[in-house]
Amino acid sequence: MISANARAVFHSEGPFKLTEIERRDLQPHDVLIEIKYAGICHSDIHSARGEWGPVQYPFVPGHEIAGIVTRVGSEVTKYAVGDRVGVGCMVDSCGECVHCHRGEEQYCLNGMTGTYGSVDRYGQYTQGGYSTCIVVTEDFVVKIPDGLELDVAAPLLCAGITTYSPLRHWGAAPGKKIAVVGLGGLGHMAVKIAHAMGAEVTILSQTLKKKEDGLQLGADHYYATSDPETFKKLAGSFDLILNTVSAKIDMNAYLSLLAVDGTLVNVGAPSEPLPVQVFSLIPQRRSFAGSSIGGIRETQEMLDFCAEHNITPEIEVISAKLIDEAWERVLASDVRYRFVIDISTMMNE
Amino acid sequence: MISANARAVFHSEGPFKLTEIERRDLQPHDVLIEIKYAGICHSDIHSARGEWGPVQYPFVPGHEIAGIVTRVGSEVTKYAVGDRVGVGCMVDSCGECVHCHRGEEQYCLNGMTGTYGSVDRYGQYTQGGYSTCIVVTEDFVVKIPDGLELDVAAPLLCAGITTYSPLRHWGAAPGKKIAVVGLGGLGHMAVKIAHAMGAEVTILSQTLKKKEDGLQLGADHYYATSDPETFKKLAGSFDLILNTVSAKIDMNAYLSLLAVDGTLVNVGAPSEPLPVQVFSLIPQRRSFAGSSIGGIRETQEMLDFCAEHNITPEIEVISAKLIDEAWERVLASDVRYRFVIDISTMMNE
Repeated sequence: MISANARAVFHSEGPFKLTEIERRDLQPHDVLIEIKYAGICHSDIHSARGEWGPVQYPFVPGHEIAGIVTRVGSEVTKYAVGDRVGVGCMVDSCGECVHCHRGEEQYCLNGMTGTYGSVDRYGQYTQGGYSTCIVVTEDFVVKIPDGLELDVAAPLLCAGITTYSPLRHWGAAPGKKIAVVGLGGLGHMAVKIAHAMGAEVTILSQTLKKKEDGLQLGADHYYATSDPETFKKLAGSFDLILNTVSAKIDMNAYLSLLAVDGTLVNVGAPSEPLPVQVFSLIPQRRSFAGSSIGGIRETQEMLDFCAEHNITPEIEVISAKLIDEAWERVLASDVRYRFVIDISTMMNE
Repeated sequence: MISANARAVFHSEGPFKLTEIERRDLQPHDVLIEIKYAGICHSDIHSARGEWGPVQYPFVPGHEIAGIVTRVGSEVTKYAVGDRVGVGCMVDSCGECVHCHRGEEQYCLNGMTGTYGSVDRYGQYTQGGYSTCIVVTEDFVVKIPDGLELDVAAPLLCAGITTYSPLRHWGAAPGKKIAVVGLGGLGHMAVKIAHAMGAEVTILSQTLKKKEDGLQLGADHYYATSDPETFKKLAGSFDLILNTVSAKIDMNAYLSLLAVDGTLVNVGAPSEPLPVQVFSLIPQRRSFAGSSIGGIRETQEMLDFCAEHNITPEIEVISAKLIDEAWERVLASDVRYRFVIDISTMMNE
């Protein structure tokens, strides 16, 4: 076994404590990655607190991982020691079902293996990137292009791909009107990526507090959803709405902003059910959909797209000892726009 | 003005009474249609009872109209006296917006004019097909192909097009697995049409009571939704689910039956909101959508398709004096599968 230092919660309320975890010995297709940076995703919090289902403690979150390959298994062909690589939300899938064959491993019919909180094919409970190293099969590792620094690459592995994939799938392009609901970690990436794809981008945020930021990120318009006029003015406007908010919002109000044949895609995942009026859908043939991260091939495509278009998240790099504080700030929407843990500070007290 | 005999309700609770209504004098593009048959649609009941919004009384329902042209306006080019024609749920739209130009008048940005319960461009409150004649602008009249009798053609004008349009839009075809929820007026048409389009069709009905019927209509499989095993067995199965039920059902249970990228389309319109768990959508990129009837061009296409494939609804022709009773039976799901009023019995007491 390979030992890693990690920050884990030992029950649903935290706090984080320094601990040691074990990574499996390298299998023929495994690579060992020295983690340099790990992004903090809202999902980490939902998961660690058991809000999305029961988890096992100690629990090490983190699925926005950027680092360097330090060792490779005997049959690895895709990576070599020294390569700059990333790992996102998945570390394995069955490899045999129709979706794995299509390169959409996130929709694996046998269930993909999450980077944390899953049981992998070796029977081990997976632990995430708030740690010094990780062992991953090469097919679930992506290359970080030269143009991207490791600290800003990390959040792309979840926030980047989670917004890139639905934008591609539902055809973000010139001539399309796209709204992004919520300007947080995912939202600010959605704005940058949709803008780079050529769409006309509107941010729908609770208040106008971040308006200046939003326009600088690439939005064409910015509206406050606390103002009822917004919903009157924008009724029937959008081809696509990407909802990045993981709290319960009034779906019917947002659906009313879709044009005929428009789609509202949730990438945020509130745990309570959302009441949908069928009359919000029928008269304009609207759709309410969901989308989950993206496949490995698409994750690589997204990284290359971001490098090519100079798209990076806005980040605040923190020391590992400040994770608890950072989580509180994420919950209070007090981050512009993504915390990234500097893993070199892992042992600092 | 042109006078018509009609059956109307005078308040939300009914009952129907024989009355006289007025149709406008023929404008240059209008045709006068002697109504021979009018189907009874569940929407008639919802509307007449004010469940879908306030209406004006006396109220004459009916938007599944089949008849004969008896007079034409001075500039009519599409129809001549003696033509066998139909009128569905719309009698007008703006004709100028992007959707009207595309021939999807049901999504008219300025609001289509309903066959009943709308105010038309002349300021008149529209009254439906439970009547002896109707005046409609030629662009909202469709031709009933020779192969179709008028009595069975009537229900196609709503139940037919409401199911045909989403089946076409979401790609019903060989190789596709389609479920139809509810085997009533719409459901039984959906089964016939989806089968004729070459799809593999499954009926999901509360009980197995109509199983024999369902298989004869063209379904490949039939399951009872009252049996929890159904939901386990069919999890992740369907490319498309057409929900024709206009009562509140457990959407998350039905969404769980969709394959990756599958869509559940509601054509039934319950008035209460339906709670949707975002986790029913995200992990398989599923969609929950709605669809409203179809455009005039598509309605003609549907009629031609039905004539070509020998598709007709199963109907029970009734005398006009039995409408109240028929409505009660519709509400009790005691009809196989559509009531059609023989308008020649209008005056019978």
